[in-house]
Amino acid sequence: MISKNFSPLKKSLSSAYSLQLSELRNSIKRERVDGFLVTDINNVRYLTSFSGSSGILLFTKDEAFLITDFRYKEQAKIEVTGWDIIAGKGDTTKTIKSISKKTSINKLGFESSVTYDFFRKLSKTGISLKALSGLIEKQREIKKALEINLIREAVRRAESAFLEVKPYLKQGIREKSIAMRLEERLKKKGCRRIPFDVIVASGQNSAMPHARPTEKKLNKGDFVIIDWGGEAGGYFSDITRTMLIKGNNINKKKEIYKIILKANKKAISQVLPGIKLRDIDLYAREVIQKEGYGEFFGHATGHGVGLQVHESPRIAWNNNKKIKEDMVFTVEPGIYIPGLGGVRIEDMVAVKPDGPDIMTTLPKELDII
Amino acid sequence: MISKNFSPLKKSLSSAYSLQLSELRNSIKRERVDGFLVTDINNVRYLTSFSGSSGILLFTKDEAFLITDFRYKEQAKIEVTGWDIIAGKGDTTKTIKSISKKTSINKLGFESSVTYDFFRKLSKTGISLKALSGLIEKQREIKKALEINLIREAVRRAESAFLEVKPYLKQGIREKSIAMRLEERLKKKGCRRIPFDVIVASGQNSAMPHARPTEKKLNKGDFVIIDWGGEAGGYFSDITRTMLIKGNNINKKKEIYKIILKANKKAISQVLPGIKLRDIDLYAREVIQKEGYGEFFGHATGHGVGLQVHESPRIAWNNNKKIKEDMVFTVEPGIYIPGLGGVRIEDMVAVKPDGPDIMTTLPKELDII
Repeated sequence: MISKNFSPLKKSLSSAYSLQLSELRNSIKRERVDGFLVTDINNVRYLTSFSGSSGILLFTKDEAFLITDFRYKEQAKIEVTGWDIIAGKGDTTKTIKSISKKTSINKLGFESSVTYDFFRKLSKTGISLKALSGLIEKQREIKKALEINLIREAVRRAESAFLEVKPYLKQGIREKSIAMRLEERLKKKGCRRIPFDVIVASGQNSAMPHARPTEKKLNKGDFVIIDWGGEAGGYFSDITRTMLIKGNNINKKKEIYKIILKANKKAISQVLPGIKLRDIDLYAREVIQKEGYGEFFGHATGHGVGLQVHESPRIAWNNNKKIKEDMVFTVEPGIYIPGLGGVRIEDMVAVKPDGPDIMTTLPKELDII
Repeated sequence: MISKNFSPLKKSLSSAYSLQLSELRNSIKRERVDGFLVTDINNVRYLTSFSGSSGILLFTKDEAFLITDFRYKEQAKIEVTGWDIIAGKGDTTKTIKSISKKTSINKLGFESSVTYDFFRKLSKTGISLKALSGLIEKQREIKKALEINLIREAVRRAESAFLEVKPYLKQGIREKSIAMRLEERLKKKGCRRIPFDVIVASGQNSAMPHARPTEKKLNKGDFVIIDWGGEAGGYFSDITRTMLIKGNNINKKKEIYKIILKANKKAISQVLPGIKLRDIDLYAREVIQKEGYGEFFGHATGHGVGLQVHESPRIAWNNNKKIKEDMVFTVEPGIYIPGLGGVRIEDMVAVKPDGPDIMTTLPKELDII
């Protein structure tokens, strides 16, 4: 392979990314810098729709440049409008210096997620610098209508792929084989990438929140956790369903499933602008704790989803920030009991003025196969 | 998905990673630091065999710590020996500060690839810092015997998967369908991850070095470039083959293929410790230039392969460093002619005292289907 993959987006999709720049120009005015250097590749994509793997943005209140290398010149021309494309061959910091001079930048903001290496090179240009943290990530928390549409399409593709694989789930089938089928279907549904390798974890494996598919066959009495996601126009989805294979100890297992389903529904029902993000985590956690399973729920309740499958905000007990309209995030409580197995139910919600718009449409009552 | 995937390695594989630490201790002595902080996750894996997605190393001449979070505690215990595992819940820089105090570190080396954010937090601890660039990456250029074995196994899996898909290649089959089959086979062969999405580029698409598989069907007269890789024990392989579908203009196409095959063989034949890396690029480039196609070969001739599918060294016209024994890299000249199509032949070589050990074993004479 000679370099990262090329996936030009249609212009029709790229309007999802427009307007963000003008918002950002307001926020950098508050930071008292004359220009802003965007180095995080997801943020570059967010602002320009450029999907290449090598690109940096530099903008001032009047001008906007995309600096990429010659390999991506053609792709940038197809994907990007409203930005001057500079396909440099040489040292990026030299290009930045020359643009800064031309556009009279005295103080340049830069993303603190950049490497120390790059920061050091940038320092040597003599431009006065100011580190800015999470400005664009915060903006990305609030989705535009077109972004929500793309995420909804990513959910639809994920669900449609799952429904085609579901009849195949039964005792004797290997975890890996299910995962491979699901990945194949996701691609057939139009997903150009999948956000992460599909997780299929059964029986003992389902008790590990980080399990990967193995050669293990689905056995009688197994919980089967399936955690997967789709993609559309660069945006991701993320879903988990847990099934049960007929077998022993069924009442205990039904009970655990019921608790997680209740925790999932309770937490989702409380989603509303103005509520603290940690409260959503606590609503789910309380249900589980009350039933005596608190120690078996070791992870946070959810996370934002968009151009990255894990992005801000985190739905966690220590996140004091408030829910805002048009956030999109997962709600995914789980219980993992060594020796018995695990259950997780993960849905995606978009926040609307009057409550949650539940994007996941797959049924979530216990499915005993 | 609640977090990155979990893939514990068997202890038997992890010995590939041992001994690197003692070498590194020598090189940091030269840098006059008392300790070294390793933040790049591939370097962490290289030194410890830890395959989780969250881990930092801190070592001195006598002690060695792996700092991870509670999610990875169990995994670290299984995978890592010889390092004290610290599964912190709190702020990583506080843990670093307390270890530095305990182990009497005055000056701490850190990897310059770390984020500026992390560097800033680290600065606030008051520890004297020194940025070190590419120390471990340079060490990773030279593969141990066990690493070469794993890469060879990754090549074997990639070749074996390809040979099972090859009979399926014919006029009328879609690029995407070929790519999906190959990915499925790679997983069946035991690859836990694949290094990059399989590239299948036919006809006009083959003229773009960055093409992705499309719904296009293989047509008469198409060049079909297939670029894919396998994995074994965390190590990758990377191969390209180009086939031709019977059709018009066949003599011209045969001629181009012949030039690339000659460039590939010529460059490989010159691989020897002590030769400059850029000379390998030039040997390939000269063959192509002499035939008048120089302008259609726009990328470098190759790249190192190991824990990352693209790693140091680059086999490029501007790399003045010398080839060393036990480097492993690709040799992949190509010609891409808009309107006609492209050809690339990519092999992997391990450098031995008397020349190249060609790891790729698939035939590379032109296959006309």
